[in-house]
Amino acid sequence: MKTSPLKGMRDYLPAEQRIRDFVQSEILRVYRASGFERIATPVLEDMENLDKSEGGDNLNLIFKVLKRGEKLQKALAGGQEKDLSDMGLRYDLTLPLSRYYAANKEQLPSPFKVIQTDRVYRAERPQKGRLREFVQCDIDILGDESPNAEVELIDVTARALMAIGFRDFTVHINDRRLLRQMLEGMGFAADSLDSVCVSFDKLDKIGAEGVAAELREKQCPESAVAALSAFLEKGQVGLADVAGLCADKSLGDNVRYVIDTVEKLADGAYAVAYDPSLVRGQGYYTGMVFEVSCAGFSGAVAGGGRYDNMVGKFLGQKVPAVGFSIGFERICAILLDQGFTVPAEKKRLALLYAPGADFAGVLATAAQLRQEYAVTVLAAGKKVGKQIDRLAQNGYAAVCFADKYPEIKTIQ
Amino acid sequence: MKTSPLKGMRDYLPAEQRIRDFVQSEILRVYRASGFERIATPVLEDMENLDKSEGGDNLNLIFKVLKRGEKLQKALAGGQEKDLSDMGLRYDLTLPLSRYYAANKEQLPSPFKVIQTDRVYRAERPQKGRLREFVQCDIDILGDESPNAEVELIDVTARALMAIGFRDFTVHINDRRLLRQMLEGMGFAADSLDSVCVSFDKLDKIGAEGVAAELREKQCPESAVAALSAFLEKGQVGLADVAGLCADKSLGDNVRYVIDTVEKLADGAYAVAYDPSLVRGQGYYTGMVFEVSCAGFSGAVAGGGRYDNMVGKFLGQKVPAVGFSIGFERICAILLDQGFTVPAEKKRLALLYAPGADFAGVLATAAQLRQEYAVTVLAAGKKVGKQIDRLAQNGYAAVCFADKYPEIKTIQ
Repeated sequence: MKTSPLKGMRDYLPAEQRIRDFVQSEILRVYRASGFERIATPVLEDMENLDKSEGGDNLNLIFKVLKRGEKLQKALAGGQEKDLSDMGLRYDLTLPLSRYYAANKEQLPSPFKVIQTDRVYRAERPQKGRLREFVQCDIDILGDESPNAEVELIDVTARALMAIGFRDFTVHINDRRLLRQMLEGMGFAADSLDSVCVSFDKLDKIGAEGVAAELREKQCPESAVAALSAFLEKGQVGLADVAGLCADKSLGDNVRYVIDTVEKLADGAYAVAYDPSLVRGQGYYTGMVFEVSCAGFSGAVAGGGRYDNMVGKFLGQKVPAVGFSIGFERICAILLDQGFTVPAEKKRLALLYAPGADFAGVLATAAQLRQEYAVTVLAAGKKVGKQIDRLAQNGYAAVCFADKYPEIKTIQ
Repeated sequence: MKTSPLKGMRDYLPAEQRIRDFVQSEILRVYRASGFERIATPVLEDMENLDKSEGGDNLNLIFKVLKRGEKLQKALAGGQEKDLSDMGLRYDLTLPLSRYYAANKEQLPSPFKVIQTDRVYRAERPQKGRLREFVQCDIDILGDESPNAEVELIDVTARALMAIGFRDFTVHINDRRLLRQMLEGMGFAADSLDSVCVSFDKLDKIGAEGVAAELREKQCPESAVAALSAFLEKGQVGLADVAGLCADKSLGDNVRYVIDTVEKLADGAYAVAYDPSLVRGQGYYTGMVFEVSCAGFSGAVAGGGRYDNMVGKFLGQKVPAVGFSIGFERICAILLDQGFTVPAEKKRLALLYAPGADFAGVLATAAQLRQEYAVTVLAAGKKVGKQIDRLAQNGYAAVCFADKYPEIKTIQ
């Protein structure tokens, strides 16, 4: 039988799991103190719900569960591949939350400030080094259309990141509508905007000329490409510049409001910046989007945005919604990489007993010692010296021989 | 789009999730203080591993994940149903742990005292009212063949149950080999013992005559049925009686040792009893099995046993192992049923702000209040009186109007 976990999935050794539990509990502590409440939904969702969820590329990465019994026989006889499966593993926590809110709205407060920390699944190509099973830590506010919801999510997420020791991070903010209105005003076709955004997103990497070249390759109208190039050549792509090109003035004002308010709250502890090319992959975002980057690490450590239309698909009634997700795996990987160790609540002590000892007495001694230590009960090995060396290597601070209690030997 | 969760799976509302988080954290606290270390493995396992795992009836309840891309096309062309899937959702935490131990043995202490609390999946018939996704809380000891491992698992599990408020429970103990040796000695065929055990398991419900009738229906030898009936008619099925019928005397002695030692540790707080008909469903158990029943509730709240051959299937080298699993869902259902409320760390306060308030200032006030309260920031509604009534109903203890801070109004 195979001993390794499946491709793209991981076993966690005790030391790494300690870090994961610590990170999760610190994040939960900050979220809860801020009045958010945790919920849980199943890992499996109806396949039709997943298919219609506007998850962008993630829809191609869904693990599908085979039908069972008669239904499977019927599907096999029909010969249609899509009929073989009736449910799938969720690719994020936003679709399940939208379904959940629609199902339970009457029993939930409004606005609903909610926590989810749970596993999600994506059938990524393993050679990319990406995980196929990973944990996301999300907070969402449902039922609040004001930009204060964005401000609060950023404030709470930033405080959670600081609680686990992150510093020197920047919150990047954009509004998709701002970008799209600007591009449409320049003459890009409305149905090409998704593709144009993908190119524009690379501004940091390939520069204004690179973006223009890519857009020409995509056969965008030359006048539109020229207008964008002219705009970028001025070198000023600040919020006022972009907002000035948009018909709807409230969009720029709202982004400005969020940035200014968060800057006051951050008080220099972290940075907030308008990022004209920030798009994010999910199709379901409708307004502001945000991302957190951290000095010294490529890629985002958190991301989110407003998705005002998703709950309505389930409920038939529009419910404004905005969410922010911490990239739990990335955070844990960075901490592990930095040699982070979890502050221990109690020192660890090994209680060693000889063969034939009165085991009820040994466990009673352990109960006594637990008032001060985390106690592991172990049979003494034949080579006790070596055993104690190994215990010290594994993080034990003390040893007690059951027959010599209350004598305790410190080993590091 | 469908708003209800999939059949047999559940959404958890905030109040129920608070109980779930409390139960899990109390169980983890006891487990960790006893020197056990948490690990995690993926929810998905290789299909071949699952198939070969001796999980009894659970093997018929596996959710299988459809292959993807070319592999799926090839499988569809082949037309073999079993080729459509290469991985499945785990039905328990014992198979993944055995695989994990084999994969990581060199990096793990011996004995390895391990915690798993995680989701498992079984495609139960929904009409039975059973969940298809549920959480198990397991502790296991790998690498210890002595019955002290059984004693410690029972001691730690009993203390975890007491920590979450359970009283009046009984730990039932048996050894499968004891039962099988007795039955074989009476003349039941070795290859019929599984089926005979299933009938014998019903002794409590259908009585000695009922068991005999069922065994005759199963066409067991009349002499064997008569021997069992004669034994049961004496009305004495104590440990000494059953052990007296077995060739291997150490089996009875070990069960006696575990019962006596646990009784000393329990010191009257819970009961320990030999249960001659206890079998448990899994095929992989090799020795002692145990179960916890609780006065006033049918069914088991915890169960486990020794499985000395499972790790060897992965490692090619025998590793003694014993585990005990708390039925997390049952525990939570009982607490919810009893109207249990989680002791709050901090009282909840709603910080209400008027439209147009300085939101950075409001959040700064929230940060001040968080030293004493769990604070939820909310826009004041048009009917503030009604809003405050609703907050009181939802467990808030106090309200503060941001513009009147530090004035605080107690609402219950």
